[in-house]
Amino acid sequence: MTSPAPVTPTVGRVSLVGAGPGSADLITVRGARRLAEAELVLYDALASQEMRTLARGARWFYVGKRACRQSIPQDVLNRLLIRYARRGLRVVRLKCGDPFVFGRGGEEALALARAGIPFEVIPGVSTAVAAPALAGIPVTHRGLASSFAVITGHHEATYGPLLDGFVPGSLTLVVLMGMGQRAPIAARLAARGWSPETPAAVIVGAATPQSWSWTGTLASLGAVEVPAASSGAPGLLVIGAVVGIAAELAAGLTVDVAAAEAASS
Amino acid sequence: MTSPAPVTPTVGRVSLVGAGPGSADLITVRGARRLAEAELVLYDALASQEMRTLARGARWFYVGKRACRQSIPQDVLNRLLIRYARRGLRVVRLKCGDPFVFGRGGEEALALARAGIPFEVIPGVSTAVAAPALAGIPVTHRGLASSFAVITGHHEATYGPLLDGFVPGSLTLVVLMGMGQRAPIAARLAARGWSPETPAAVIVGAATPQSWSWTGTLASLGAVEVPAASSGAPGLLVIGAVVGIAAELAAGLTVDVAAAEAASS
Repeated sequence: MTSPAPVTPTVGRVSLVGAGPGSADLITVRGARRLAEAELVLYDALASQEMRTLARGARWFYVGKRACRQSIPQDVLNRLLIRYARRGLRVVRLKCGDPFVFGRGGEEALALARAGIPFEVIPGVSTAVAAPALAGIPVTHRGLASSFAVITGHHEATYGPLLDGFVPGSLTLVVLMGMGQRAPIAARLAARGWSPETPAAVIVGAATPQSWSWTGTLASLGAVEVPAASSGAPGLLVIGAVVGIAAELAAGLTVDVAAAEAASS
Repeated sequence: MTSPAPVTPTVGRVSLVGAGPGSADLITVRGARRLAEAELVLYDALASQEMRTLARGARWFYVGKRACRQSIPQDVLNRLLIRYARRGLRVVRLKCGDPFVFGRGGEEALALARAGIPFEVIPGVSTAVAAPALAGIPVTHRGLASSFAVITGHHEATYGPLLDGFVPGSLTLVVLMGMGQRAPIAARLAARGWSPETPAAVIVGAATPQSWSWTGTLASLGAVEVPAASSGAPGLLVIGAVVGIAAELAAGLTVDVAAAEAASS
């Protein structure tokens, strides 16, 4: 006589998936596979509507607003993830870029761990590195920069002391969500001894049809004006010597094919 | 009478593709597509032999050695890329992680641009972010770290002044290629005022079957011994408060499926 199978509650699985910087084909193969298997997708703003075709069988539930930020409180979102997983659903939490680079994925992961829900993290291509790359800027380059820092430009009280510590010109600085602070950031770096001739870039809507970029110097960064057509897209700043090779590098760079396709469709 | 078509030399295309941190399915969809179309793949050390199945129709040419470093001089490699592109081949230059994060992809891109060869850059998931993520460490986390820096630990003359500038405990520090320097790095940070209780991690062979990790504090980082089975794999250090939530977060984290599959095949 065999013993009965143990009764286990049906528990689904949550996959925290990085969508990458924009184009639907810059998600990882593993991420695309989880979308294809998903029954429910909770997503932030998507740069590419094409990404929805990767999970045709799933219900898509929008929890975001523009610039990859959430529109509902984090604790409510955490409870949603737990509730749907407990119903046995295969849930994908699709996040812009990488889940753990300013994506608050860590908070969702902790909430799931505390609730006993199995989850996985599928890393994504981070916008912090890919947006400069697609504009011809390598965040590291032999002889120009052997390190880089990624900071957020929300609050001067937070980023100020960090900026003050960086040895002028010693690393590539990538500032996410810093579009509105470009003048005070440039001024603060200049005051700390960064050369006004330090190359600088503004990149808006990377890997999307609204893509726009500017390169110049730290001295001119504060006054850059973003065209109206791109001003709603998320943007970032890149400051450092590596920006100086962008023009030469970009001369041979073919366009971001997927973004061009999306623009024409 | 129609005029004859202009005679254009046959020129192929070079795709600089980031392979991601290890597992074959952590490459992007676009990167996998380029591999499928490739006629020639120039690759560094591959964490996963499975990646070769993505480009069955291509010739694979090994230019690497262990830990993702090249075995042939950069200028020779640049000339190879140019020569094969001029023969009209579709060439993929497959690089560990992301092509522009310590991958010397910028040098290859510049050489191609100067030679008039069309090329594209397909970003990859950087090991600097993904290796911590797969070990349960988010490089940013609300209340713990709102920025991170990625440096190389090759030469104290280079990383030393950088470390000295970072405000103690203000950001997450990821040190690539710093396994051999973990003791002097820990000592230097402590001397600059970082608390000896600052959480720290060592991660070796992320997203591969040789994966191994350790978490502890800055005070104990210098003396960590890596097991022999993993000591040949590339490793990195993570230093900062975010490491402190790894144990709780990892409790719910399911294993890296692809790595487990690779180990058993």
